[in-house]
Amino acid sequence: MLGEIKGLNEECGVFALWGHKEAAQLSYYGLHSLQHRGQEGAGIVVSDEEHLHIHKGLGLVNDAFKEGDLEALEGHASLGHVRYATAGGGGLDNCQPLMFRSQTDSLAIAHNGNLVNAHNLKLELEDQGSIFQSTSDTEVIAHLIKRSVYPRMEDKLSDALSMVEGAYALAVMTEGKLLIAQDPHGLRPLSIGKLGGAYVVASETCAFDVIGAEYEREVQPGEIITFDRNGMRSELYATPAERRMCSMEYVYFSRPDSNIDQINVHTARKNLGKKLAAEAPIEADIVTGVPDSSISAAIGYAEEAGIPYEMGMIKNRYVGRTFIQPSQELREQGVKMKLSPVRGVVEGKRVVMVDDSIVRGTTSRRIVTMLKQAGAAEVHVRISSPPITHPCFYGIDTSTKSELIAATHSLEEMREEMGADSLSFISIDGMLDGIGRQDKDSNCGQCLACFTGNYPTDIYEDTLHPHDKVING
Amino acid sequence: MLGEIKGLNEECGVFALWGHKEAAQLSYYGLHSLQHRGQEGAGIVVSDEEHLHIHKGLGLVNDAFKEGDLEALEGHASLGHVRYATAGGGGLDNCQPLMFRSQTDSLAIAHNGNLVNAHNLKLELEDQGSIFQSTSDTEVIAHLIKRSVYPRMEDKLSDALSMVEGAYALAVMTEGKLLIAQDPHGLRPLSIGKLGGAYVVASETCAFDVIGAEYEREVQPGEIITFDRNGMRSELYATPAERRMCSMEYVYFSRPDSNIDQINVHTARKNLGKKLAAEAPIEADIVTGVPDSSISAAIGYAEEAGIPYEMGMIKNRYVGRTFIQPSQELREQGVKMKLSPVRGVVEGKRVVMVDDSIVRGTTSRRIVTMLKQAGAAEVHVRISSPPITHPCFYGIDTSTKSELIAATHSLEEMREEMGADSLSFISIDGMLDGIGRQDKDSNCGQCLACFTGNYPTDIYEDTLHPHDKVING
Amino acid sequence: MLGEIKGLNEECGVFALWGHKEAAQLSYYGLHSLQHRGQEGAGIVVSDEEHLHIHKGLGLVNDAFKEGDLEALEGHASLGHVRYATAGGGGLDNCQPLMFRSQTDSLAIAHNGNLVNAHNLKLELEDQGSIFQSTSDTEVIAHLIKRSVYPRMEDKLSDALSMVEGAYALAVMTEGKLLIAQDPHGLRPLSIGKLGGAYVVASETCAFDVIGAEYEREVQPGEIITFDRNGMRSELYATPAERRMCSMEYVYFSRPDSNIDQINVHTARKNLGKKLAAEAPIEADIVTGVPDSSISAAIGYAEEAGIPYEMGMIKNRYVGRTFIQPSQELREQGVKMKLSPVRGVVEGKRVVMVDDSIVRGTTSRRIVTMLKQAGAAEVHVRISSPPITHPCFYGIDTSTKSELIAATHSLEEMREEMGADSLSFISIDGMLDGIGRQDKDSNCGQCLACFTGNYPTDIYEDTLHPHDKVING
Amino acid sequence: MLGEIKGLNEECGVFALWGHKEAAQLSYYGLHSLQHRGQEGAGIVVSDEEHLHIHKGLGLVNDAFKEGDLEALEGHASLGHVRYATAGGGGLDNCQPLMFRSQTDSLAIAHNGNLVNAHNLKLELEDQGSIFQSTSDTEVIAHLIKRSVYPRMEDKLSDALSMVEGAYALAVMTEGKLLIAQDPHGLRPLSIGKLGGAYVVASETCAFDVIGAEYEREVQPGEIITFDRNGMRSELYATPAERRMCSMEYVYFSRPDSNIDQINVHTARKNLGKKLAAEAPIEADIVTGVPDSSISAAIGYAEEAGIPYEMGMIKNRYVGRTFIQPSQELREQGVKMKLSPVRGVVEGKRVVMVDDSIVRGTTSRRIVTMLKQAGAAEVHVRISSPPITHPCFYGIDTSTKSELIAATHSLEEMREEMGADSLSFISIDGMLDGIGRQDKDSNCGQCLACFTGNYPTDIYEDTLHPHDKVING
Repeated sequence: MLGEIKGLNEECGVFALWGHKEAAQLSYYGLHSLQHRGQEGAGIVVSDEEHLHIHKGLGLVNDAFKEGDLEALEGHASLGHVRYATAGGGGLDNCQPLMFRSQTDSLAIAHNGNLVNAHNLKLELEDQGSIFQSTSDTEVIAHLIKRSVYPRMEDKLSDALSMVEGAYALAVMTEGKLLIAQDPHGLRPLSIGKLGGAYVVASETCAFDVIGAEYEREVQPGEIITFDRNGMRSELYATPAERRMCSMEYVYFSRPDSNIDQINVHTARKNLGKKLAAEAPIEADIVTGVPDSSISAAIGYAEEAGIPYEMGMIKNRYVGRTFIQPSQELREQGVKMKLSPVRGVVEGKRVVMVDDSIVRGTTSRRIVTMLKQAGAAEVHVRISSPPITHPCFYGIDTSTKSELIAATHSLEEMREEMGADSLSFISIDGMLDGIGRQDKDSNCGQCLACFTGNYPTDIYEDTLHPHDKVING
Repeated sequence: MLGEIKGLNEECGVFALWGHKEAAQLSYYGLHSLQHRGQEGAGIVVSDEEHLHIHKGLGLVNDAFKEGDLEALEGHASLGHVRYATAGGGGLDNCQPLMFRSQTDSLAIAHNGNLVNAHNLKLELEDQGSIFQSTSDTEVIAHLIKRSVYPRMEDKLSDALSMVEGAYALAVMTEGKLLIAQDPHGLRPLSIGKLGGAYVVASETCAFDVIGAEYEREVQPGEIITFDRNGMRSELYATPAERRMCSMEYVYFSRPDSNIDQINVHTARKNLGKKLAAEAPIEADIVTGVPDSSISAAIGYAEEAGIPYEMGMIKNRYVGRTFIQPSQELREQGVKMKLSPVRGVVEGKRVVMVDDSIVRGTTSRRIVTMLKQAGAAEVHVRISSPPITHPCFYGIDTSTKSELIAATHSLEEMREEMGADSLSFISIDGMLDGIGRQDKDSNCGQCLACFTGNYPTDIYEDTLHPHDKVING
Repeated sequence: MLGEIKGLNEECGVFALWGHKEAAQLSYYGLHSLQHRGQEGAGIVVSDEEHLHIHKGLGLVNDAFKEGDLEALEGHASLGHVRYATAGGGGLDNCQPLMFRSQTDSLAIAHNGNLVNAHNLKLELEDQGSIFQSTSDTEVIAHLIKRSVYPRMEDKLSDALSMVEGAYALAVMTEGKLLIAQDPHGLRPLSIGKLGGAYVVASETCAFDVIGAEYEREVQPGEIITFDRNGMRSELYATPAERRMCSMEYVYFSRPDSNIDQINVHTARKNLGKKLAAEAPIEADIVTGVPDSSISAAIGYAEEAGIPYEMGMIKNRYVGRTFIQPSQELREQGVKMKLSPVRGVVEGKRVVMVDDSIVRGTTSRRIVTMLKQAGAAEVHVRISSPPITHPCFYGIDTSTKSELIAATHSLEEMREEMGADSLSFISIDGMLDGIGRQDKDSNCGQCLACFTGNYPTDIYEDTLHPHDKVING
Repeated sequence: MLGEIKGLNEECGVFALWGHKEAAQLSYYGLHSLQHRGQEGAGIVVSDEEHLHIHKGLGLVNDAFKEGDLEALEGHASLGHVRYATAGGGGLDNCQPLMFRSQTDSLAIAHNGNLVNAHNLKLELEDQGSIFQSTSDTEVIAHLIKRSVYPRMEDKLSDALSMVEGAYALAVMTEGKLLIAQDPHGLRPLSIGKLGGAYVVASETCAFDVIGAEYEREVQPGEIITFDRNGMRSELYATPAERRMCSMEYVYFSRPDSNIDQINVHTARKNLGKKLAAEAPIEADIVTGVPDSSISAAIGYAEEAGIPYEMGMIKNRYVGRTFIQPSQELREQGVKMKLSPVRGVVEGKRVVMVDDSIVRGTTSRRIVTMLKQAGAAEVHVRISSPPITHPCFYGIDTSTKSELIAATHSLEEMREEMGADSLSFISIDGMLDGIGRQDKDSNCGQCLACFTGNYPTDIYEDTLHPHDKVING
């Protein structure tokens, strides 16, 4: 159950638009629909062809933008970002888009993903006199663009990206152009849509639905797309490798109403639940899922297993930023925060509890305990992703290997640790089948690095010990 | 689909506690779990046996209480309230608990429900020299208590309640006592729990689960319960009529993890869905529910009908108080706010859309349209409550009879109005069966007034034309 | 130096307007100019002839009213108030105007001053069934109005005021009328002005200047003035006693640009300084005043004595509500807050330090010490009011007799206590001369109670021990 | 009357501290005392020897820092800044200190003043690949430091400053060092003090008084001072030119309790008033000054002329950021905002109105009109600085030459324009005499550029047309 209880959302969201007079307004709604991808800060930059105007703020899109902020952002093109950040990650400085102004023009840049050679590039750039204001990878790309000797922005960007390695779904804006790019493995989702004559780009397709735009296609691995007065142009800046779409986008990260590479996320999750039921059946009275991200998988499990799906837990919708935390004493007395068991549902029942993933195992243990205290006779844990045994260097915050319970414990040890009556994970093949990317054209691979340790890119020494790295875009 | 899309929650929530040194803190978490019952304001009053201390604020519990506010509320007894109010309802003045200070002692009072003879009582009281600062019914009760000639607070309260008619789950606090009371029909839920040696009272049992308290029993119709140094005492101040629990608490208002009169709300809703499937079957590809309150019923329908349940719509979690509304133009262009269809799920499908209720019909029409625009081949609307044909005078904001679509349209007219391919409501018997109160002891009736017009109390002329009535507790 | 350093402003401010379509806007600016009279809360109620609309908020007028709040207050008549409150005085509940709604009409009421028999009246009213929500004296008057059997509001008010004793400058508003009244001794200032065809009433005339209104006259002791569709009418509800205008309004409380009873406050203070110089001359190098309220007196002293006036201290303008207080340790290390000495001015100089009053003496001691630490060779303290030896029961917060240093210490003891090289107070005659009310018509007395103990009204037992009194209007 | 009415404060304030465990707390109070130098934003960076920690915020120091922000800034050294900015100047991005992080160390930088060759330097730096995030001059200096090949930070800074021209009082902080520097003409004030064993640096000495520190000396033109573990070291990085202290610091900008180069500002102003009285006497009844900055000069004038000083105008203390502006209509009806005349003082009087300076003349005209409307018989305007005929390029916001009334109008034209009965400016010699720098050691020149057009530095073409320049530090 990555992200849900921990309150962490491990990535960022990008939303860009070209050719609509209400670019800022639409970006606001678009970013809003990507809010689950980052709740620490939001920013929008617009171009009115002569200048870039920017507004950024901390917190939710709602908090970062107030009545009047949007009015000030007049322009026909926009680039927006919602940001995930670890604690203490430098406040507004690290908020994106980053904006760089020169005497002649300006450049705004935002991205989702994580570079693996940023540290090395920074050292080199600093040797050449560059100075950095943020700790964001994104600033490295900006410096590389600025130092490129090519005159055309497309070529500058291509030049810059040829030097970076990692995962990125990237957008760059100047007064006259909007450019977007995907890393050669296509590790992060980025889709293109149309809204009348305007172009829209978003990390997830749910942003299209919210503003009434039509889906067009995915940005391809290694592709740079340029929007300007002459419309949209595509070029490849790198030989695309086989696509390695992040599995976790399907498993728990994206919104259920998004389609990632044309596969609906809710449907994929429900199918993961069905596969899981087929692979790991159990006799039980009810199936329940950890809200919100595991509900679809739980319903799939229930359907396949022929066991009723019930609301065994409920998530508190109102636990906001200013929520006063209970003291340790009250917490021990049983004050619950984000998740409550439904005693009337689980009492005396044999419960299948479906969760999307296990990282450190602490959350699962807490939920099992909570269900048993609420009277569950048995709790059978079913996980709709394979065991996570390796850290992710591409933007998912699964921290270091030593903290991953599946990297250090056997299945039985894990079961015991969390106090479950049984525990099963879906198999890698089951997951691939469930999501169903293989059924599509050839370029449909998934990144499985966190399950297998086979990373699609090189991994650098100091990525492995990321002592001074605080921010993933 | 009462309440969900409209952003209206039609009642209030009461939470009280006796005998715990962290009374204010626990009330904060308790009120938090009742947040769905009122989002316009929150207040807590505590007693340290010598004085009452109060803090109230507008908005969510989160917003109304900040770090430090709770520390200032030292005491072993507390009385809290979350409030629903119509627009313009007077701000903090109408926020509860209301507090009345005399030279010798203080009185705090809060309630959930609506009196039907408040207007007449106010006129009489004013004739006798009383002045009113709020437009709340609650203030009437306070005046009646104050004017009672009985010396004991229990008798004063009993005296006061003998004059009022309507629905109320009420709590009163003085320096030395906490009293709670139910109207003689028991129209609103109010439960008692225990937390170690302390007593807890709440509008819904979910508040017990959140703080780790154990359910004890319901407050009975016509009962006054007093908590003081001598513990808990009960007395009847009125001959209890047969209980008439509000049906809507089960249908859509309460939280699914609450038990109302020992019946779990999720389970009741799921059973309503099953009954509905049995009463109004249809050939379809998927079943979907309007989030959040209709999900349980939709799952029940799916299970009974053997049709897969899918997430056909998604509710945006982040549409807060400060959300910038789209301009009319953008709304017409298709910018969605709180609810989005899941195109990948509904496209090309025959959809059963389960909703909990229909008031004016406009929301249902909007959802049907939205689903069809997202590609649904057919949309069959199934409503898990009977047609609402009469206004509620007891606290549910279903406005006037002329606005109730079911009061003025035939079933076929309604279906056409909302553009559905078919439309069915559960029957009254189906609803009673589904909720299952009849299977319990004899005193288990439900209020069916909004479906039948048979009101359990007298209704007064000016309740029917509530021109000057703004606030229901 | 009452009020200045302590951050206390001991009274309230009233501003009312009849007959201008921008009544709320103008009240905002009017209250703003009365801000020094109360910084704890502000409120405005307007009438559009059919309804009263109210907005109140805590803090400065700036904080209590935001863009949009004024727009909502449409009406041609308004009644506003800024409020002073002691710590813990109940928040918004005690903020004025208080508003009382009955089934047939509404009543708003605000006042400046303090009743001396409020406690007794409350006891009686409670015996008759009245309940109180605030601890404000003002609520007592509202109850008395409500209980009056007279049909005309003027007579109701007159009836009510015949029962209260103390100091009050009062305003009452109904849908169709604005009424103002003065206590029979005229202890608090209240002036009438005209703005085109509209009438304005304010605690100080500076409010007229700010909105461009012309001064007309004072409200007379014992007078009730009614504004309604028929214009302005006056009647006496009590035999007026000789006027006893509060001396402290001249000495330190009012704004220097106000005229109290047609005497300019700055001029009065400068004359106090001159009298003081004549009564208590001293050889010195510079004269300085404690900002802001003692500057005028200091300039007068300097002029009369022929010693240069210098800025020996400076007041920090930016110490706001959210200012982070220095820790005790830092304070001891010398971190200054509101007042700093000007070392370059006082170093090596014999300094006459003029202050407006001495209450407890602690502030004076602190200032003398500060000046000496900044290098002053001698510090001669000159006070432009006589020694305060008795508490005020009419609204000035000079606390109990035992805390008044002049009530318990000889002049020499006081001088020693504050470490001054010499200390003199103006004489009572000198003060009366300086202010100059005697030069006017016969009805020009001043209240001297705090200097002499001769109170113009009866004083009640429990006024002397105001254990349960928290709020003065 | 620069700055007062316009609400503009044209410079910035710097406060730094080395060697005190409560560095952040003390910086907060220090910045607070410099608040008049910049109200748009505030920031503090501290070093704990291992890392730099920063907090910045918009608005007053009060608003930018909340309880808890200071606690997070642990360290023994600090660098703080309050910032003045023109409208739209980019928000927090331009707030100082600017912070630059490299892989090995960090750099914070803040300054007061304005570079005249920043534009050219930016163009060169961009050609070499530098990118800029702010529009602040300060960022240019940071790039120059970063690109310097010297290993020692002192030499890097010296190297960087050798390339810039203009006015700057600068502070730079790394993990291990605090460096401060003055431009070779010493155009901006910067003083050093001691607080026990700690060193303090501030734009004005009032910051020393507030925290109880002792004044030590001025930072000399062309001096770099380094504070580190080995204490304080000084070196000259440039041949110091004769000092050219900004005249306007004395005339209106600094706080009266500050000493600029050991001359007290209040005393200097009072002397300016005396000189002015001697140079331009007039028969009149009262002297008044425009608050706050012209009060001292007015008192000086009054003293010298033997005419009584009176409070002819009053400044409203409570017009804050959120003040609701009166509509144009209300303004025309006479609603006053920041300044009110004291009718009781000026009515029928011949008034000498002393102001500190005239820029565009609009404010003076408004004040003369206001005084006449309040009944002044005559208004004689006396200005305590010479006519401003040339723009300032060093940080004082007197805008372009064409807007300076004294650059385009004769004395008589100006008098007529503002409706005064007479108008006189102090002479340049009178000003030099009044301030009295000539009486000191040889290096005591003042910058007179705005009166004479003799700029102490070269002026660059695009400084003269500062189309893209928004921010002065």
